[in-house]
Amino acid sequence: MIQTATGAPALRLAEWARRSGTSALQTMLSVGTRPGTLSLALGLPAPELFPTAEYGRASAAVLSENPVALQYSPPHAPLQTQVAGLMAQRGVAFAPEQVFLTAGAQQGLSLLARLLLEPGGEVIAETLCYTGFQQAVEPFSPRLLTVPTDPETGMDVDAVEALLAGGARPAFIYTVPDGHNPLAVSMPQEKRVRLAELARRYGVPIVEDDPYGLLAYDGPPAHPLRALEREWVFYVGSFSKVLAPALRLGWLMVPEHLVPLLAIAKEASDINTATFSQRAASRYLEGGYLPGHLSMLRREYRRRRDAMIAALEKHFPAGARWRRPAAGVFVWVELPEELDAGDVLRVALQQGVAFVPGHAFAADGSRTGSNCMRLNFSHSTPEMIDEAVARLGRALQTAAP
Amino acid sequence: MIQTATGAPALRLAEWARRSGTSALQTMLSVGTRPGTLSLALGLPAPELFPTAEYGRASAAVLSENPVALQYSPPHAPLQTQVAGLMAQRGVAFAPEQVFLTAGAQQGLSLLARLLLEPGGEVIAETLCYTGFQQAVEPFSPRLLTVPTDPETGMDVDAVEALLAGGARPAFIYTVPDGHNPLAVSMPQEKRVRLAELARRYGVPIVEDDPYGLLAYDGPPAHPLRALEREWVFYVGSFSKVLAPALRLGWLMVPEHLVPLLAIAKEASDINTATFSQRAASRYLEGGYLPGHLSMLRREYRRRRDAMIAALEKHFPAGARWRRPAAGVFVWVELPEELDAGDVLRVALQQGVAFVPGHAFAADGSRTGSNCMRLNFSHSTPEMIDEAVARLGRALQTAAP
Repeated sequence: MIQTATGAPALRLAEWARRSGTSALQTMLSVGTRPGTLSLALGLPAPELFPTAEYGRASAAVLSENPVALQYSPPHAPLQTQVAGLMAQRGVAFAPEQVFLTAGAQQGLSLLARLLLEPGGEVIAETLCYTGFQQAVEPFSPRLLTVPTDPETGMDVDAVEALLAGGARPAFIYTVPDGHNPLAVSMPQEKRVRLAELARRYGVPIVEDDPYGLLAYDGPPAHPLRALEREWVFYVGSFSKVLAPALRLGWLMVPEHLVPLLAIAKEASDINTATFSQRAASRYLEGGYLPGHLSMLRREYRRRRDAMIAALEKHFPAGARWRRPAAGVFVWVELPEELDAGDVLRVALQQGVAFVPGHAFAADGSRTGSNCMRLNFSHSTPEMIDEAVARLGRALQTAAP
Repeated sequence: MIQTATGAPALRLAEWARRSGTSALQTMLSVGTRPGTLSLALGLPAPELFPTAEYGRASAAVLSENPVALQYSPPHAPLQTQVAGLMAQRGVAFAPEQVFLTAGAQQGLSLLARLLLEPGGEVIAETLCYTGFQQAVEPFSPRLLTVPTDPETGMDVDAVEALLAGGARPAFIYTVPDGHNPLAVSMPQEKRVRLAELARRYGVPIVEDDPYGLLAYDGPPAHPLRALEREWVFYVGSFSKVLAPALRLGWLMVPEHLVPLLAIAKEASDINTATFSQRAASRYLEGGYLPGHLSMLRREYRRRRDAMIAALEKHFPAGARWRRPAAGVFVWVELPEELDAGDVLRVALQQGVAFVPGHAFAADGSRTGSNCMRLNFSHSTPEMIDEAVARLGRALQTAAP
């Protein structure tokens, strides 16, 4: 069957999916959502916290006022202005014309890869990094130059500097400075300054992926890299975690000369038009609901994070290590070196709990992170978190070599 | 500015945009929507005919019932089943598992190009063809093998056969069998049979782009190519013209073994998740509104088509030729050879009317179609159409050499 009506690129994609374990993760999604299983596996926001009623009123208002809301039209300019306002709260000042609206952050990453990356080109990324980034660059069969991540301070900027000083000129550097996925770490200010300075000095763009910067739990986080460097930092933002994923709304902030090229690339990809979501979200933001919604989200997710830390202290054996993340939706747990998180997962699924083993994020296909677990705390109530971590604790006892 | 923070692929894209006149078309969009200008330029559906109230009720119902409607989740299975039902009306029998939901037909084209086309690979297409197709394949810098289009019967199947018999093995053949864009022609049954047979014989996929097959005005159209050949025809469908563009909803019908690969490619592109539009449209379809809506659309657009033909007969000079299209949203007008539609457009814009000159669709960058005009009839009322065509008639008199 596979030899008919299938292009060579499709066959390569199939091979990549097999190699990277993408399909294994998809299996996990279906397992994780089986009734009775508590899932800490995916980075899902809590649906019971979605602003459903307000978004519903905003949608209805938009539809009742103007049938052109459902027509092809340029990207919704008022939403660009509102995003600019939102980013100003994070210390980033820029013109609405520099906001490029996308169908979520993943599309933002994918369009930037399209504009910046030659087939076979180089990218600097952390060894353990977001699988969606790996998927966005995969069509270009890139050579990934990987650097380690310090669990306390994030991306190893010395390693980045060594690569650049050694002559590497990658298409871009990819990083998640706040609430890192999967390592849950936020980068301190001095590292941000150094990284931005490296980008400027060597003329290498940084793609700053920031889905979680608005979800910081211990006071305002450091400013994004984009606040430190306008020309060389391309910022990727998203409403998926702060409003809702199914709206498919995100944005890029890029130097103005790239906006028309992004518009052409997006047009090729799915038509660069205002979606109904753009208009409805804009109306929601106009209603002034977002600040209160964000406060509520931070309060609730902080409670869930603290419940997870408490549960880990209660149920996990000595020798396991973790940190209280300042932002995002994950806790990263390191088990003793001799434990394999893949083995733990097999036992855990029998106990009715799912998570993602660390090496699933290894961009170089190595076993890096194989003694680590990524645990999500945004999607479960504190009670479910305690129960899930208790089951994991029992799984760890069973799986111990 | 352009030499900083810009990848080589971005520079190539800029060059392509300049060469292909993509930005010229964008200028036309903004001109065409200037108050006072009547635009026959773009393929826009009529917003006053959108099912706004019913879609609004469907959205509200979905939101009020389940907050998970806004969550990440697999593509919405009920909509796959409904699409299968809709296609059955067009004579295509297949399982819902073969329906792959997309963010509009453009994304469908773009994903298929991604799976089928190697960089520098070959594609068979008509010399005059949909610019969105040209944009979807552009990232792969393809070699286009172009064939002519007969204004009476569509794609020149003899020319396709000559290419294949001569040894060409392109990644795929692209065509729009119903309500061709820009040529407004529908392919008769015997040509469809021959084309499907060629695909099978030579083992070359056909990408069948069908945004207008449900908008046929003189009785049911011939069945799509997909009804004649299951394995080698990849069908691209869209709700943009039959429901509304801003929902960004389309679908592919492909051999089942391609569905998981499309899922990975879409995940890389914008996350393969159920959008809120998928759920709301599914609820709308569940309400049974679509058959009545389609009848109304066909009646209204038939009236507009006929108004355009009547206006052409009244206002256009001898020597201009056109046909009454059986489907779609365009009329294609051929002017006497010595007239240049670009010159006509400049005069027409002064008269307050816009259209697209034929050679804007030339995939080979040639002047093919330079004496032709693509006129849209779906977006304007019969009265506006008469006035717009009258202005064009005056522009033709002024522009005559």
